[in-house]
Formats: sequence, C-alpha cells, structure tokens
Amino acid sequence: MVLVVIDGLGGLPHRETGLSELETARIPNLDGLAMNGMTGLSVPVAPGITPGSGPGHLALFGYDPVASNIGRGALSALGIGLPLAPEDVAIRINFCTVDSAGSVSDRRAGRIPTELNAELVRELADIEIDGLTFDLATESQHRAVLVLRGDGLSTLVQETDPQQTGVPPLPPDALAPAADLTSKYLREFLSKVTERIGAREPANFILMRGYAGLPDLEPISRLYSIRPACVASYPMYKGLATVAGMTVLQTGDTLDGQIATLGERWSDFDYFFFHYKYTDSFGEDGDFDGKVGALEEIDAAIPAILDLEPEVIVVTGDHSSPATLSAHSWHPVPFAFLAKSMFPDSVTAFTERACAEGALGSFPAQQTFSLMLGYAGRLAKFGA
Amino acid sequence: MVLVVIDGLGGLPHRETGLSELETARIPNLDGLAMNGMTGLSVPVAPGITPGSGPGHLALFGYDPVASNIGRGALSALGIGLPLAPEDVAIRINFCTVDSAGSVSDRRAGRIPTELNAELVRELADIEIDGLTFDLATESQHRAVLVLRGDGLSTLVQETDPQQTGVPPLPPDALAPAADLTSKYLREFLSKVTERIGAREPANFILMRGYAGLPDLEPISRLYSIRPACVASYPMYKGLATVAGMTVLQTGDTLDGQIATLGERWSDFDYFFFHYKYTDSFGEDGDFDGKVGALEEIDAAIPAILDLEPEVIVVTGDHSSPATLSAHSWHPVPFAFLAKSMFPDSVTAFTERACAEGALGSFPAQQTFSLMLGYAGRLAKFGA
Repeated sequence: MVLVVIDGLGGLPHRETGLSELETARIPNLDGLAMNGMTGLSVPVAPGITPGSGPGHLALFGYDPVASNIGRGALSALGIGLPLAPEDVAIRINFCTVDSAGSVSDRRAGRIPTELNAELVRELADIEIDGLTFDLATESQHRAVLVLRGDGLSTLVQETDPQQTGVPPLPPDALAPAADLTSKYLREFLSKVTERIGAREPANFILMRGYAGLPDLEPISRLYSIRPACVASYPMYKGLATVAGMTVLQTGDTLDGQIATLGERWSDFDYFFFHYKYTDSFGEDGDFDGKVGALEEIDAAIPAILDLEPEVIVVTGDHSSPATLSAHSWHPVPFAFLAKSMFPDSVTAFTERACAEGALGSFPAQQTFSLMLGYAGRLAKFGA
Repeated sequence: MVLVVIDGLGGLPHRETGLSELETARIPNLDGLAMNGMTGLSVPVAPGITPGSGPGHLALFGYDPVASNIGRGALSALGIGLPLAPEDVAIRINFCTVDSAGSVSDRRAGRIPTELNAELVRELADIEIDGLTFDLATESQHRAVLVLRGDGLSTLVQETDPQQTGVPPLPPDALAPAADLTSKYLREFLSKVTERIGAREPANFILMRGYAGLPDLEPISRLYSIRPACVASYPMYKGLATVAGMTVLQTGDTLDGQIATLGERWSDFDYFFFHYKYTDSFGEDGDFDGKVGALEEIDAAIPAILDLEPEVIVVTGDHSSPATLSAHSWHPVPFAFLAKSMFPDSVTAFTERACAEGALGSFPAQQTFSLMLGYAGRLAKFGA
C-alpha cells in the first residue's frame, strides 16, 4: 500500500485563465490514475474547516483529526526535528517587544530576521535552572520552540501570550496543583530571559503558548497489524509519521532520492506514507506557476511508484493550498485510488472539478485508511 | 414501505467480459426502479469494511451496525433457528482434533461431514449437568451451536479456542466473579464431552467461542411507531428480524411463496423486510452465472411487489458478495429507492457503476431507515 500525499494539493482557478493549478499542469500520470481508478474529494476535518498539517495528515493515517489534534508546541518541535517524549512539555515561543511600562508593544518584535532569532537563542541556551533541562531552538523569524524535559512536568500552565498589545504578558500560573513545579520553572526561566535580553531591541522578551507533550496515539502498526514506513524529507512530516507509529526511513532531500528509498525498502514494509512538499510551499507563497511546476514534478514520479506494483495506491493531499489564497484552505482535496477488485469510475482527469464527480463523492479523509486496508484484503469480516 | 434485501447484491467485473453480475443479468424491472427512482451506493459499516450478515442487516434496519453487533454464538443460534433469550448464553462450537499430548492438532477436525457432526451432537445431547439445561445443534461441517439456559449465566468466560494448533485448548475460566457458575458448568460439560467422544477420530473434542446472549435492541416497532414484518425463508434473517422487533411471517421456501405472503399480509403491517437469499449463496460459491440467474429471478418478482403500490420501496443488499471473490466483500452496495414526492436522478440502470453516479451518492446504510420513514411521511418535524 502506498499513500502519496501531495502537500497542499488542491487549488483554485487562476483569475485570468479560470483554470486551477491542477487544470493548468500537464499531469498525464495523475490523470491516468484518475482514469483507471476511483476518484473523489477528501474532506480532512469537516466542510469549511481549514486544516493544519497535523490534522490533515493524521486524518489520512486513520485518526480522528479532532480528537488526535496535536498541540502547537509539539507540532513546532516536530517541525524542526527536536526529539519529543509524551512527558516533555513543548512550548511555542514568540520573541516580542515589551515597552518601558512592561506592556507588550509588538507580539512579534517586528518579525525579526531568523538570524537575529538564532543569535537570541544562543544567548538564552545556557540558562541554568535546578532540576530542569530544556532545548530552545529557532523556528523562523520571531518563532522559536522551547522543550522542557524533567520529572513532574505539566502542560496545565497559563499561556503568557496576552494575544493583544498594550497589556503586560500574563504570568505562567499553574492552572492545577500538578503544574506548580512547571510554573516555578517557567517563572525562573522568564526572569533569566529578562536578565539576558531585556535591554535589547526590538526583541527583549518572549511570549509562550501551545504547551503540549507528544500526543500518545495508538500506533497504526499495532492498530492494524501492518508494517508502516514514512518516506519524507521534511522534519514535521517525519514527526507526524513517528506520532502514528511509522518507521521513518532515511532518505534524500530530493524527490529522486525519495523514490529511490521507496524502491530499496519496498519489501521491508507493507504501508508507505510518501510525502511531497513543494506544492504546498508554492501555494503558500502565492506562486501559481511554481505550484504548477511542482505538480508536474510529482506527476513525473508516479510511473516509478506504479512500477513497484502496489496493491493499493492513493494519491491525495493533506489539505488544499490555492496559490490565489497564499494559504492553506478549507477546500476538499482531489483523491485518486487504484486497486484490484474495484470499479473504475468515469472520471478521466485528476482535478478538483473532475474528482467532484467521482464515485467516492466527498468523504471524510479519515476513511482513507480503512479503504486502503479493505482493498488490500487486510481487514477481517466485521460481525458474523 | 418495503425494504427488499437482495443478499450479497454487489459484485465485481467478470475477468473475461469486464461486466459485473448486475451488468450481465437481464434485469428490466430493477433497471426500471433505478430509472424512475433515486439511486446510490449504501455503505453497510464503513468504507473498506466487509460486513457479516448481522451488521449488514441491522444497519438497514436503522441500528448502528457497530454498537449493535451481535455475538457469533447468538448469530449461529439464530441462523439455525434455535430459540434464544437475552439471558441465555449461545456459544459457537467447533468440533476439533486433540492429540495424545492434549494439544489441538486441527481446529476443525478436518472439516468433518455434517452427518458426522449430527452423530456427535446426538452423542452429546443428553449430557446432564445439575442446574443447567442446554441445546446443542449442528450448524454444518465442524460447526455447531451450544445454547445454555438457566439462572445466573454470564458470557464473561474465556473462549477455549486457542486460535492456533500445537497448544492445548484454553480452560473456560471466569473472567469476572459473575461468571463463576457458567465457568463451572462449562468445565463439567467439557469433561463429559471427553468421556463420550474422546476416543473418536478425527473429532474428539470441542472448542468454544463467541459467547453471546440475544442482543437487547430497542424494537423498531417502538422506536418508530410502525408495524414491521419480515418475509424471509432462512432462519438467520428471521432471527435478525426478531432482534429488531419485527413480526416474522410464516412463508414458503420459494420466492413465489414469499411474494404470496407479502400480498396476503399487505394490509396488516406498514413496513416489510423482504429477504432474497440466493444471490449471496451463488456469490459465495464463486458461481458467476448462478448469481446472474438469481438476479434475474428476483428481478422477475419486482412487478408483483410494485403492484401492491408501496408508498416507498428500497431495493439494496446487506453487503456485496462478488462471485470473483467467492466471499462477502467491502464494496458499497447498489441502492434504488422509489417514492412519491421525490426527484428521480439521471441513473437508468441498476448496476454498481450506474448507482455510483446516483443522487444519493455513497452513504451509510444506516440512513436507509430514516429515508424510508421520511418519504413515507412518517416522521414529525424536527424542532420548531
């Protein structure tokens, strides 16, 4: 089984041509999948809901995307490849500007350059607090991640980001007695932050939110008795695969490298999550032509995957990222599915409009997993 | 209202012709229903999940097929027409072979002929255990059913089938104090089984699993204030109708007999579950042409049902049973629906591919019941 996730796959019509990225791209291999297989539109979370990468992927892995939602701090830690355990507390950090009266004047410190962020992180990295170890790491611009490690930590601490300017940061108060220790650590940490960078400009303090440990999901290997593997280049997707209990394979930074890895490890696993990133990057940048090019790049890789003769292949996205919106969006995502023992539908193109007419209709992305397992003959009969 | 269940209705393309059983059969009356009505594909349990007959039917009767799942023992008892009460414990029995070391060497005793099974059942039928009465009955080959009746019984007993060979059967240990008595009864029963058939070949012992009473479902007569009746020939489907609170009508073994019963009792009830079995039997036997013939047989009976002028008629299956797979399958099931006050869709044939384009789309089979009641004008307005 192969699940090919083309990140941010779905798009919207270009204002001049009236054609979407998929309708513009030359994608004969994806069209061939749609022609020979069944198609539809997958709904990652619910109609109208724009998914982040976490729920978008976890739904495709068979998890309830709402119940298994991953806290912002944990997702940030996974996103930059920091190790994370369920008992750790990952915190999303903003470098911010606090004025002389102690109020937040800019929650993002003017979106400082990533280089300055890295310099500030180096300045804070050797803070010492009794009983606590931590990792602090740059994400980008004003964004960083703090991961607390130690005994007796808790996420039940008030977020310090007031979500508005002109008021002071909130204190990291314990929201339950179990969080007293964590609260004490964070107060100490914040006072040392002020000691070290309080006189700087524009970033002279930090705001903290999204306290979260690694989500404790039942691994799909155990849930479904399969050997699942991940072929992805970006840390966040490797992190999400880890959360789902997949083996993360070493692979290159290029699509060719990923395809080579898939072929080399083909017989070692029976489920592969294959992730392609650049469609989303171009979509988020509002680069329509760039996204068209990325679609053509992943299209060209499809024959090499089909040559491996997967029993079941699904090609879809974790969400849409239309270049005209320069962002993730709520639109359902084209979905093509090829397996033995199936009826091809009458759809012949892999586009948003064509897949809307497919036999699978609009359906929750969470059903993808049982669909794949079912067509692969991996599910026992339910009930007698 | 009439719900016509064509058991195991859905199929798959024949390897030579590329046409499914429905696409091969001459079924002008079913095609007419599709042409005049609305169509879709019903999903009995969930995409990719192969349903047994129990969940397949209970979904069509409006029950959650997962929450209302019926234990294997109870379904076997219903299947051979044994009376069963909620406080009884029905147990699915395998005659098996145990070697001289006490290990199971064949969990099915070489699939002994049904006649030998019946002989063994006669041998065990007059076992006497203080405080317990029971029925033991042949199902087929190595399969039998034991129904315990008495006070204070419990299903919380360890299954004795080890699900593998080379190890001894497991003891029927109580899994909770409430099952101590049942456990004692079963130990005694097993020791008497050894006394009586322990020296035989190849079947010299029994394995027990699927302990279950009659599921205690709210009857649809009460849930929906209707008078529901069942017209079915096979015991298991009569049993499922009983579980759902339907009146089971006396009817013949033939389709003509069933049609006659439907006509005779037409004015006594307002909901009929009409069951046709042979499509599934031929599908499970891998007999493509036989299934085509069965489809043509039930097709020919449709006009007699329409002549009764039902307000609402649904024709679908409880699951698919493609002859190419010789088994129940996970594929969604063609569904045709005719009522007053509806929009016919553009589908003109009652096939898997045609119904995939129907106005109802792919939808949970559990919605069938409210759809029927709604179009029959039997549901009050929800909310003010």
